[in-house]
Amino acid sequence: MESSLYQLYYYPLNASMAPHFILEELNVDFELIIVDRKSNAQKSPNYLALNPAGRIPTLVDDGLAIFESPAICIHLAENHPSSNLIPKVGEKNRALFFQWLMYLTNTVQAELMVCFYPQKHTTNVKTVDNIIEAQEVRITEMFNLLDRELENKDFLVGNSISVCDYFLFMLAVWADEFKKPPLGFSNLSRYLRKLAKRDAIINVCKKENLSLSDYQ
Amino acid sequence: MESSLYQLYYYPLNASMAPHFILEELNVDFELIIVDRKSNAQKSPNYLALNPAGRIPTLVDDGLAIFESPAICIHLAENHPSSNLIPKVGEKNRALFFQWLMYLTNTVQAELMVCFYPQKHTTNVKTVDNIIEAQEVRITEMFNLLDRELENKDFLVGNSISVCDYFLFMLAVWADEFKKPPLGFSNLSRYLRKLAKRDAIINVCKKENLSLSDYQ
Repeated sequence: MESSLYQLYYYPLNASMAPHFILEELNVDFELIIVDRKSNAQKSPNYLALNPAGRIPTLVDDGLAIFESPAICIHLAENHPSSNLIPKVGEKNRALFFQWLMYLTNTVQAELMVCFYPQKHTTNVKTVDNIIEAQEVRITEMFNLLDRELENKDFLVGNSISVCDYFLFMLAVWADEFKKPPLGFSNLSRYLRKLAKRDAIINVCKKENLSLSDYQ
Repeated sequence: MESSLYQLYYYPLNASMAPHFILEELNVDFELIIVDRKSNAQKSPNYLALNPAGRIPTLVDDGLAIFESPAICIHLAENHPSSNLIPKVGEKNRALFFQWLMYLTNTVQAELMVCFYPQKHTTNVKTVDNIIEAQEVRITEMFNLLDRELENKDFLVGNSISVCDYFLFMLAVWADEFKKPPLGFSNLSRYLRKLAKRDAIINVCKKENLSLSDYQ
């Protein structure tokens, strides 16, 4: 059996979801390899040899292991330029693409991780509820900023779908149990519901066992 | 007077430091505009119109405002391809460049921000010391990972300086008062001391009033 072009080491609904969306959107041949978080497989010697940070995902492209979800998305998009998932070098929207992708990863994603794993960010486990409470307020402000940005827009950058939109969809799914979830914002809600109709999102959510009924 | 090609809205030793290094390295004409954090100028209506996240830095390039420090660095590097500060599309090291830049911004930088502003991440100000303590342990592990990566290497990616190195230098400066600071790691120390000899770093540190004596 010939091996696939790409191997994605993933776990359902983890940060592997964004590159999984991109692989589906590109309609390329790829292999999914589950990293069993329940047995802490992301810290096993074999996995750490691919990804010294011991996190999910990792992409292997022709023997080259690449980690960091947004880096994998950029790599895939640039490997398949006809997909237009990233504005090309010299195009006007390219700077804004990186601006928003950085905001999504170093701010929204990073703050969500603190919210979901508060025990890692304090030496006093009795205080985790204080962290969760503060984080939910902070992240809700970030979704508010994104909601304003999406007024009259179907895509975060330019007039066609890009890596940023798939990345934001993943983060919105993560936050879906917030007191005010992303679907509670009018522009974000319209935007997410439209994205949820795309084949790439439908296919990945089916494979990762996520119901999209809230987005219908 | 003719206006400069670029305007960088900055504050000494803030996240503007990385793009400031890049502008110096590129040896292009640019203007520094200070954002007075002491009077909370980053939340003023004028500044928010440029950067809705209300953070430092922002770059204005020919009327286009771009925020997010790593995005500004990528934009500047791609605008000046002969500088080789980012591997070009199709080059082998490009995926690794994005991998490390993402790790630096969404992990090391984001975790440092929690460490430096713990009061923003809890609703109980009495617990900030628990957050600082946990963060310093986490971030020290991250510098340990970077130290291993830099064994026998002068640059984080490939055989010449890139945006990643300037970004890491900024983060190392931020962490210089940790119990085990970046200069306490053997490979990182060798690497940082070599970077500290570069004109771009010497010039920026002079302008931002940071002594490099520890790096000599």
